[in-house]
Amino acid sequence: MNTLERFIPRKKASVGLPAGTLSPIAKTENGKTNLNLLTYDSSGAIKDIQETDIHQIIIRIEHKTNQVSWLNIDSLHEIEVIEAVGKAFGLHPLVLEDILNLTQRPKFEIFEDYLFVVIRIIYWDDSIDEVREEQLSIILMSDLVISFQEAESKIFEPIKRRINEGKGRITSLGADYLAYALIDIVVDNYFVVLEQLGEQIEDLDEKIVTVPDSSTMHEIHKYKRELIYLRKSIWPLRELLSGLARGETKLIEQETIPYIRDIYDHTIQIIDINESFRDVVAGMFDTYLSSISNQMNQVMKVLTIISTIFIPPTLIAGIYGMNFQNMPELQFWWGYFAVLGIIFIMMIVMLFFFKRKKWL
Amino acid sequence: MNTLERFIPRKKASVGLPAGTLSPIAKTENGKTNLNLLTYDSSGAIKDIQETDIHQIIIRIEHKTNQVSWLNIDSLHEIEVIEAVGKAFGLHPLVLEDILNLTQRPKFEIFEDYLFVVIRIIYWDDSIDEVREEQLSIILMSDLVISFQEAESKIFEPIKRRINEGKGRITSLGADYLAYALIDIVVDNYFVVLEQLGEQIEDLDEKIVTVPDSSTMHEIHKYKRELIYLRKSIWPLRELLSGLARGETKLIEQETIPYIRDIYDHTIQIIDINESFRDVVAGMFDTYLSSISNQMNQVMKVLTIISTIFIPPTLIAGIYGMNFQNMPELQFWWGYFAVLGIIFIMMIVMLFFFKRKKWL
Amino acid sequence: MNTLERFIPRKKASVGLPAGTLSPIAKTENGKTNLNLLTYDSSGAIKDIQETDIHQIIIRIEHKTNQVSWLNIDSLHEIEVIEAVGKAFGLHPLVLEDILNLTQRPKFEIFEDYLFVVIRIIYWDDSIDEVREEQLSIILMSDLVISFQEAESKIFEPIKRRINEGKGRITSLGADYLAYALIDIVVDNYFVVLEQLGEQIEDLDEKIVTVPDSSTMHEIHKYKRELIYLRKSIWPLRELLSGLARGETKLIEQETIPYIRDIYDHTIQIIDINESFRDVVAGMFDTYLSSISNQMNQVMKVLTIISTIFIPPTLIAGIYGMNFQNMPELQFWWGYFAVLGIIFIMMIVMLFFFKRKKWL
Amino acid sequence: MNTLERFIPRKKASVGLPAGTLSPIAKTENGKTNLNLLTYDSSGAIKDIQETDIHQIIIRIEHKTNQVSWLNIDSLHEIEVIEAVGKAFGLHPLVLEDILNLTQRPKFEIFEDYLFVVIRIIYWDDSIDEVREEQLSIILMSDLVISFQEAESKIFEPIKRRINEGKGRITSLGADYLAYALIDIVVDNYFVVLEQLGEQIEDLDEKIVTVPDSSTMHEIHKYKRELIYLRKSIWPLRELLSGLARGETKLIEQETIPYIRDIYDHTIQIIDINESFRDVVAGMFDTYLSSISNQMNQVMKVLTIISTIFIPPTLIAGIYGMNFQNMPELQFWWGYFAVLGIIFIMMIVMLFFFKRKKWL
Amino acid sequence: MNTLERFIPRKKASVGLPAGTLSPIAKTENGKTNLNLLTYDSSGAIKDIQETDIHQIIIRIEHKTNQVSWLNIDSLHEIEVIEAVGKAFGLHPLVLEDILNLTQRPKFEIFEDYLFVVIRIIYWDDSIDEVREEQLSIILMSDLVISFQEAESKIFEPIKRRINEGKGRITSLGADYLAYALIDIVVDNYFVVLEQLGEQIEDLDEKIVTVPDSSTMHEIHKYKRELIYLRKSIWPLRELLSGLARGETKLIEQETIPYIRDIYDHTIQIIDINESFRDVVAGMFDTYLSSISNQMNQVMKVLTIISTIFIPPTLIAGIYGMNFQNMPELQFWWGYFAVLGIIFIMMIVMLFFFKRKKWL
Repeated sequence: MNTLERFIPRKKASVGLPAGTLSPIAKTENGKTNLNLLTYDSSGAIKDIQETDIHQIIIRIEHKTNQVSWLNIDSLHEIEVIEAVGKAFGLHPLVLEDILNLTQRPKFEIFEDYLFVVIRIIYWDDSIDEVREEQLSIILMSDLVISFQEAESKIFEPIKRRINEGKGRITSLGADYLAYALIDIVVDNYFVVLEQLGEQIEDLDEKIVTVPDSSTMHEIHKYKRELIYLRKSIWPLRELLSGLARGETKLIEQETIPYIRDIYDHTIQIIDINESFRDVVAGMFDTYLSSISNQMNQVMKVLTIISTIFIPPTLIAGIYGMNFQNMPELQFWWGYFAVLGIIFIMMIVMLFFFKRKKWL
Repeated sequence: MNTLERFIPRKKASVGLPAGTLSPIAKTENGKTNLNLLTYDSSGAIKDIQETDIHQIIIRIEHKTNQVSWLNIDSLHEIEVIEAVGKAFGLHPLVLEDILNLTQRPKFEIFEDYLFVVIRIIYWDDSIDEVREEQLSIILMSDLVISFQEAESKIFEPIKRRINEGKGRITSLGADYLAYALIDIVVDNYFVVLEQLGEQIEDLDEKIVTVPDSSTMHEIHKYKRELIYLRKSIWPLRELLSGLARGETKLIEQETIPYIRDIYDHTIQIIDINESFRDVVAGMFDTYLSSISNQMNQVMKVLTIISTIFIPPTLIAGIYGMNFQNMPELQFWWGYFAVLGIIFIMMIVMLFFFKRKKWL
Repeated sequence: MNTLERFIPRKKASVGLPAGTLSPIAKTENGKTNLNLLTYDSSGAIKDIQETDIHQIIIRIEHKTNQVSWLNIDSLHEIEVIEAVGKAFGLHPLVLEDILNLTQRPKFEIFEDYLFVVIRIIYWDDSIDEVREEQLSIILMSDLVISFQEAESKIFEPIKRRINEGKGRITSLGADYLAYALIDIVVDNYFVVLEQLGEQIEDLDEKIVTVPDSSTMHEIHKYKRELIYLRKSIWPLRELLSGLARGETKLIEQETIPYIRDIYDHTIQIIDINESFRDVVAGMFDTYLSSISNQMNQVMKVLTIISTIFIPPTLIAGIYGMNFQNMPELQFWWGYFAVLGIIFIMMIVMLFFFKRKKWL
Repeated sequence: MNTLERFIPRKKASVGLPAGTLSPIAKTENGKTNLNLLTYDSSGAIKDIQETDIHQIIIRIEHKTNQVSWLNIDSLHEIEVIEAVGKAFGLHPLVLEDILNLTQRPKFEIFEDYLFVVIRIIYWDDSIDEVREEQLSIILMSDLVISFQEAESKIFEPIKRRINEGKGRITSLGADYLAYALIDIVVDNYFVVLEQLGEQIEDLDEKIVTVPDSSTMHEIHKYKRELIYLRKSIWPLRELLSGLARGETKLIEQETIPYIRDIYDHTIQIIDINESFRDVVAGMFDTYLSSISNQMNQVMKVLTIISTIFIPPTLIAGIYGMNFQNMPELQFWWGYFAVLGIIFIMMIVMLFFFKRKKWL
Repeated sequence: MNTLERFIPRKKASVGLPAGTLSPIAKTENGKTNLNLLTYDSSGAIKDIQETDIHQIIIRIEHKTNQVSWLNIDSLHEIEVIEAVGKAFGLHPLVLEDILNLTQRPKFEIFEDYLFVVIRIIYWDDSIDEVREEQLSIILMSDLVISFQEAESKIFEPIKRRINEGKGRITSLGADYLAYALIDIVVDNYFVVLEQLGEQIEDLDEKIVTVPDSSTMHEIHKYKRELIYLRKSIWPLRELLSGLARGETKLIEQETIPYIRDIYDHTIQIIDINESFRDVVAGMFDTYLSSISNQMNQVMKVLTIISTIFIPPTLIAGIYGMNFQNMPELQFWWGYFAVLGIIFIMMIVMLFFFKRKKWL
């Protein structure tokens, strides 16, 4: 698994192409692009159409007062779909390029009669034990929201349910509230990912204190990198949402601003959590290094104690193992016992010494 | 004790719910919500009502000139209470959600006819040896202050006493001064927590210099984390108070601004102290690492001295323990004594050498 | 290869010369300066002239409505060429100096009737395994673009092709779009270099986890430096492009601004990637240090185990090698076997002890 | 000596007291508060009164054109004095509280008819080898300066002398110049303290290069902390003085602004020096760590050399100390000398090997 | 050589002196102050006067249209000279103090009819192998430039030559261009110093990779400090030049602004280089630390290999050196050869083991 690759938008193939060229980046998998049109007013959903032909969808979008249409497009494999949408609603070619270039930084752009927002859906991919991202592009018009999802996902199910049940504010407010609801659910997901990351970091922290080994280092390393990666998606959110909350476009109504300020508060919290986690993981590396040092200290102490206790007696034994003819002590009947005694006392003294030095 | 969890607002359950849904987050414990209404004018307290029925309380709030009402609500277990308050005073649904979502970042929001402030009460929880937080939400209206405390606490007792005794400026000034007094007492508490933390860090610092062991590392680690945690609550205070001090709302009278500037100064001091503590704790980690290195150096020196003094003589003893038939020295009557002398001199020379190298 | 030198504009020779002196810095190699004039309108290229005489070129530049001329000059060895261009189009002497001083920081300067942009072309030089830079200076006039490339390169080939084929927007838009296209292709190249760097860093990361050796450190060191070096060229790009996107000069038409904002977004991504890589490489150094520590720990454990298992038995063997006349054990027929048994048991006990300490 | 305590304003006792309460913080020592009134005009000092009764002083302050009064109050033990001053000159209760609360951050506050400045006098306390602080509060009115010093000190003696001698600009300019002179002398003192610190850091730096030991670490640690501590007093000075230099109050005349800008320049220098010292001390810690590592390297090399030179010969000696009956070499008359020779050659080879590895 | 002293303006002696006192700081050496007046118009130099009497010089300064006078004063030992200049041209006393106080931070101050600029000349002092600074103060009036150099130097020789030869723009433009030229030559010198530093750092870098020893650390330490020191002079330059380039004073004509913007670009480059060098030197410290660790690892491996190969055979030899009467093996004629064989095989196995662990 090549994790660093995630940091780089794959561009090599497209260098030199004119801007606005809809490059086949998204076509990595052959598959269908799913289209779903949902029309609703304050009473709930009126139409819920699954279609495969984009042209059929577009002509069925009605423009009635107090009625909102939501066109959700996922799995962006068919360039023709995006081109058709771009043509039907007069989108700038660079916007279409950004929708297909799935490595956009979160941002928003205000155009004459639509607002373009790119954010990134993150989730924890259990299979590779890593954070994964998908791009979500939203086009907000006065009575229409078009959302482009990189892949199929169930993230917007709760919103569809709320619309169908005609429950809550969503059906009584305009398209801008729908766009807000989409962004809100994506941002809420960040908390879920951070919670999962937090639990794993917690487990790792436990491990460092009790049984650190060389794999621990790689895990610290990994979480450090995941947090660097997350930061790249999280930080631009702040700018994006404070920009939307300034209400520079009439597409977002005054009534919706407090809700956007609410998501803004959430992104500040997410940034805070991410930075705190980075501080915590950096601290774990320090703890890990110091526990390795401590371990080495322990090893060295064992070696030193053993050497200090056994090497000097070995010299004494060596001396009385010499073969000189004239070694008076050898003749004494108590010589051997005296030597044994001396060795024993030396060892006791050494042990006492290490005890006092708190090495034992 | 799972300490990292504190960093994350528990959100998983509520992802996808429409904003403004009063989720049951606060209902973790089953209990009563306490209500207390205090009405006073410059003569001191007029009414002090403990009630269990929020509707009874609300209808008893009078709106007279120069009279201030303070409704204090703690232990936010009953959603109905918050809903009733929200309805009675026309609070925005997101404000109610923020009051119940007990993981808000400190902030203030100006509405048409009320001001909404969220701050966090911190205290040192001796039982778990950690900093703990509670959320305090304040609604300031022209003659009414409503305070929502996460849990029961005695933190506002001094203010109640001052009101009852009609002492100080509090009874002669308006609701904005009461709100100021509530925030002031919370911010003052930060100094108390930092003082306690400071004393513990001081003790730890003493320990590092004298008897560092592996538990020391975990303690440094812990204080580092507590300070990271505190920072999250402290930094937003600055923005909050400088915002209030700018006097953008007519709810805060000109007379009260100097008092708010005064708390602002305190928060700057708190931020300074927190940052200084972080620097100090970071320095302690360096000291700890270097004292481990020093210890290892000591251990290595002992090992080296012992080895260097005893290994060479052991070789000499070994040589004269060989069983060659033709070893002339063995026959000399002074051979043994010469060898002993040589060994002795070698040891003295080595000791002298280590003395000069300052290893002894 | 003296890599640090790249950081310093070679200036020593020119200290004290008046500003605007066209110093011979670029003359390091003797060679020809290549000139290429391309004139086109919405139908594609009309003229494509390779010339060696600058004066011939200049008089052939036509100024017709809807027609754009692009004069590309590379290999800046002939000062006369630059002087002639400067005189013909009324460029400020400092601009000429900046074009020849090949160590400019990316910047733009707005003049009365032309815009001056300096950016740096980067590429990965396989032969020296380092990032290399070349300076690109662009003069944008209302119907003319003059580009000065430090050396010959094929980087603009795709643009020439697009012009010749009359394909895309390039021929139907003005000189400002051409200037945009030149900058865009240069910025796109940064992704390519970062992608190459990313792959190499990835390989290195693999190596650190598996077989770190002392050369690993030098590689980490090298990538650290490459990223420091890249940052110097990348950061000013942001300022440059946000400046151009503000549209302070009428030379850049409103229609081209979204394209420039598009490159601006790319530079933000490039900065993000560069900073992320720096974080990643910094983390690799930590991993490397800790894996060295781990290795040393392993070495120390082997030493300690060997010493602890063999030194104590050696003492026992030494004791029974002493030559005292009165050593009762020596006479027992089972003495030798008992000693062998004791030694064997001691070793087993030690091994068991190390097993429990998880050293084995 | 509890050094961390200095960072925390002692607040615990006063939590919950209404703002503006003159708490007995300053009363730690029982003593007299000293009062000194100095009145002067361009001819020099007219009156110089030492008094113990504040009311006597206050009624003797004259308000004449071109005449300035300076009331200096030190040793703030008597709350009554501050209260009397506050009443006589209409000071805000929070100003009085700030004067007595001796842990203020440097700041200034503009009121209707007076300016309130708090700065901190620092000096190097030789007895405890630490930086000490005292608070100086200044009230500037149109023809009166009141200065409140935490403790008795001689810091303002030079100013008194200049006034008495009628020398320099001080007597010909207004009260604002006097206030400037007081602040200037305090800021000048910072240079003195930094100079002393600089000398000590220099000495320490010398020591690290020559004879580092474990006490060195504690000294580095100490200077690090002193510099953190100083920073807390120094940084706010910048803001304070740039604020005063903006001339937002008519109490500071246009003529005095250049003088204040002058102190502002000094504070920038002080901040620069402090930050440079912090960088230098941080570098010393690195040097210290690396010299410990170097030492350990040396120790390890000695151990390895000794072991490598003596352990292999010991094995050879051991082999020929074995008691096998059939060991042919033992019979050779030259056996012993051959073994001695082999051992000698082995040792020489090893020494040569270490020489080449540059370990010797 | 006391290097830290350079960071601190020597102030102790002057604390308490009124601002504007021309203190004898510059009088450290007794010497003459050199005066040089150069008057020129577009035809080149008209007058070039070396004088010792400042009053003689002042009266010879003519004020004619299109004629510029440049009064260069170096070696500021005579306070009378500065006082005379101050009086003759109406300079503010604080300006005079700043000119004599040779530790000013680079800055500019705009006065009614003159501009005051302080910058620092840096050069590499080979004799002490350190960066040295000198202060240059410039007074710019409408037709006069007065430059005050701390010491005699040849730095302005190229400008004098250009004036004398009437070459370049310098003689045809006003006094502001002359001031620009002085600053430009000083800033150009920074590149020279950085180039020298860069070469030395490069050499050091080479050394770290090949033969690091303990002196390497001190060199890294030294360059770190030199770069900290340089930064103090370099950073304020940016602010200074961007301030001048804003053209807030009519003393700098519109025509000169592009030249000042040019130096501004240079200072940005200088800051970039300095920061890059700091990053590079910081990286060198990491490399150094890791190469020490690697060395220690090598040492430890040698020790462990030797111990592991020789200690176990020593035990075997010890066992057969025991003097038990009943040791059957001793009687076997092949016993000795078997033991030799076993020892030999053990050693081979160990060597094979270390080979596989890549320790050899």
